[in-house]
Amino acid sequence: MKPCLKPDFPHHWSNFYTPETFRITGNEMVEKLAVYLTDLQTRQFDRVLPHSAPEERLRHWKLRIKDVGGAETGALWKGGFLKEVMAQSTRLHDPRYAGHQVAVPLPQLAWLQAATALLNNGMAIDEMGPASSPMEEAVMQELAKYMGLGGESGGILCHGGTLANLTALLAARQRKASGNAWKQGTEPRYAVLVSEQAHYCVDRAVRVMGWGEAGTVKVRTLSNHQIDPDALQSTFEEITGRGFEVIAVVGNACTTSTGVFDDLEMLAGFAEQYDLWFHVDGAHGAAQVFSQLNNGPLKGIEKADSVAMDFHKMLGVPALCTGLFYRNGTDAYAAFSQKAAYLYENEQDEWWNLSKRTFECTKRMLSVAVFGIWEAHGPKLWESLVDRLVDRARVAAHEIEQRPQWELFAHPQSNIVCFRLIGADNAALRQAMLENGPYYIVKTEVNGETWLRCTFQNPLTDDLDIAALLDRLEELAASCSIQP
Amino acid sequence: MKPCLKPDFPHHWSNFYTPETFRITGNEMVEKLAVYLTDLQTRQFDRVLPHSAPEERLRHWKLRIKDVGGAETGALWKGGFLKEVMAQSTRLHDPRYAGHQVAVPLPQLAWLQAATALLNNGMAIDEMGPASSPMEEAVMQELAKYMGLGGESGGILCHGGTLANLTALLAARQRKASGNAWKQGTEPRYAVLVSEQAHYCVDRAVRVMGWGEAGTVKVRTLSNHQIDPDALQSTFEEITGRGFEVIAVVGNACTTSTGVFDDLEMLAGFAEQYDLWFHVDGAHGAAQVFSQLNNGPLKGIEKADSVAMDFHKMLGVPALCTGLFYRNGTDAYAAFSQKAAYLYENEQDEWWNLSKRTFECTKRMLSVAVFGIWEAHGPKLWESLVDRLVDRARVAAHEIEQRPQWELFAHPQSNIVCFRLIGADNAALRQAMLENGPYYIVKTEVNGETWLRCTFQNPLTDDLDIAALLDRLEELAASCSIQP
Repeated sequence: MKPCLKPDFPHHWSNFYTPETFRITGNEMVEKLAVYLTDLQTRQFDRVLPHSAPEERLRHWKLRIKDVGGAETGALWKGGFLKEVMAQSTRLHDPRYAGHQVAVPLPQLAWLQAATALLNNGMAIDEMGPASSPMEEAVMQELAKYMGLGGESGGILCHGGTLANLTALLAARQRKASGNAWKQGTEPRYAVLVSEQAHYCVDRAVRVMGWGEAGTVKVRTLSNHQIDPDALQSTFEEITGRGFEVIAVVGNACTTSTGVFDDLEMLAGFAEQYDLWFHVDGAHGAAQVFSQLNNGPLKGIEKADSVAMDFHKMLGVPALCTGLFYRNGTDAYAAFSQKAAYLYENEQDEWWNLSKRTFECTKRMLSVAVFGIWEAHGPKLWESLVDRLVDRARVAAHEIEQRPQWELFAHPQSNIVCFRLIGADNAALRQAMLENGPYYIVKTEVNGETWLRCTFQNPLTDDLDIAALLDRLEELAASCSIQP
Repeated sequence: MKPCLKPDFPHHWSNFYTPETFRITGNEMVEKLAVYLTDLQTRQFDRVLPHSAPEERLRHWKLRIKDVGGAETGALWKGGFLKEVMAQSTRLHDPRYAGHQVAVPLPQLAWLQAATALLNNGMAIDEMGPASSPMEEAVMQELAKYMGLGGESGGILCHGGTLANLTALLAARQRKASGNAWKQGTEPRYAVLVSEQAHYCVDRAVRVMGWGEAGTVKVRTLSNHQIDPDALQSTFEEITGRGFEVIAVVGNACTTSTGVFDDLEMLAGFAEQYDLWFHVDGAHGAAQVFSQLNNGPLKGIEKADSVAMDFHKMLGVPALCTGLFYRNGTDAYAAFSQKAAYLYENEQDEWWNLSKRTFECTKRMLSVAVFGIWEAHGPKLWESLVDRLVDRARVAAHEIEQRPQWELFAHPQSNIVCFRLIGADNAALRQAMLENGPYYIVKTEVNGETWLRCTFQNPLTDDLDIAALLDRLEELAASCSIQP
């Protein structure tokens, strides 16, 4: 039987609903995206990041939106819309992309995203995710064990590290704060210990929970930027003495700005000693657990109560896709349900209704990409990705050390490397790159000083790209009179 | 220049990174999904929802995952993986889908999702969303005005209604709670007034903020299931008398379970009288603002301080994609920054760094689908979609009224209709449909009584499908001895 639209349907619907139009536009999209990939892999653009002022771009889109309803036929991306989106977006698949911590997705996963977007199974309850819910349960149990979290471990997938860290701290609050926070509420006298280098979302989670500025207790770091164990002890005593009840300690694995891993073993011991929840914010670096070569800085992660890890950073999955792992899988129920804190058995029986454990009610089918990669390749693909990306940072560090006019911040422990041109205005230097291209790199501030920063996310960045990046920075420094 | 992988890359990478493989797998995907659509539009399956026990499905995927690393070549979905995902998922594009409130996506948007998944611009700061951030700003300002929220309005896009409602309540807390909640924290003495029919995520948001069970004050509803104005007044007085500080009143537009809209005009007046924040949870029904025929129940929405609306419910966008609109656009900054509450001007200048206003740091390019639809079709497409879906519920209600053995819960105000077979065990009846098919419908409880429930999300559901649904239920009642 041939599918057809009934005559009472609006005429313009035919473009949206007939499989034939869908097939035609799909084939057009395949071609567009394949050309995009080819252009980027061959470095056809003079800049990774199209550069213009935000207000200018806003004006552009505001003008476009005024002219609505013009395209009755054809795909949504006719009239140059998609072409403009692609032209104006940051081009992550250019091997000269070394900017922020967002995956350069495995291209094929774009098609898997198309499939799950069409299926659109919402996953709040089992009936809305009959395939994706058990897949999530299976893969998260498997990966949690793989992280060394043991036989009782498990986890959930959610939309991003911010949400994962908040969810972990909600579980921590329920497990460790005196009273039943979910039922009785809490006063602003609880606190979380965290490095002064922690991502802002930890502080944000604490403030969302109503504990204000004082609820996030930032602990001083050593010169190597790890939490100082002595400061941890003295800060804990000081804050406890002031009447605060510490519920959790959060370790960075790694910090966003410089890629430094806290000493997780030390933090685990401290948490155990004082009966605190130990959460590892491994949004960026926990992925290194999949690498034999590069899992060293994660020693101790297996003692965490919870670990957040973004599949959309080092693991090639399109954003957002974050795993929140629990050493005790049933702790997941504590985050959102007071009942769960007391009735393990009942809740365990309801793993298939995922909204009991996830912030989201309706959720995307996040598990399909994770399960699909894992099933097809096991740890091998992720190991090779992680190793390649971390190796990029090491190659860059080595190159920097060969050049006397450059200073390396620290030997990279992950795919992040910070460095600077000695005596130069490095902020101006990075701005010159932004305006003139072709590379996209970022900057960070450490103790009030500016450092250039690369996060190598593109596995196709090769050694020559890295040498050329430094050459280009030197050239810009000279031509833009940035060199002192 | 031909793109190529350097010899030092792992061999198995070639499947992921070469544009040629990408093109081949893309074309395969187009074909697979086009066939899927055709099969569903022609009602080829005997059930919308593949039915089996959760534990059985978990066992299946656990077995599969043990056998990892088998498929070195080819796409991730070789070896039957994608075929199984599709076979085991709930089939929303079958015209006989009338289950939960999740969009049956406009098929072409799947391709747009593929494009944005590949681009993967994270949007935390302007440089990571040079196209998608100004698009979001432009379209949300435009749509907020279109909702009647006036010239100062604006909004943000986020991952789902739960997050949008929490974000709105965080803004409400900052604007209305005494003191500076973001800085000083809050005690569990604040409260939010809401109908007893509200979605669980409002209660969840309140508990996340640390106000416990008592923080959500559920107001009695009238026999028509709207908030009772007298109960609202007396509950407010009672809770205030007990020392609680009410910060907000939340209106349902509409309730999830029965599709009833609160009297938003009345709630707006009440909020104004007592200086409360007025939030409309319009996750499902605010979309009716785009319809001349069906915007009646939303009267008063233009007086809201904030409105949450899911594009992934009635508006055909794949999940998740929620708009959070503010009457005063700068209120968006209050949700996450104490500074913002006092320094409007500075914050206004930073609209391009979206993570100041959104919960998410890295975010998907949610604006592309919203802007793309709006630019191509203006309100016309959404108006026709909303009208068609609401009309489906009216057709069903009419059909039910023609059959004396059936009882209609209420005349539908949206695309949700509740009904029951008089004297039958309607829970068993719905279970029989689940097990035997072909339709997928759900159920709800009102005052302890079970009602069958349809949410018409598929615009291709036609009048004959609706009549056949009732016929099939009658047949199942007879054959399964459910009829009393």
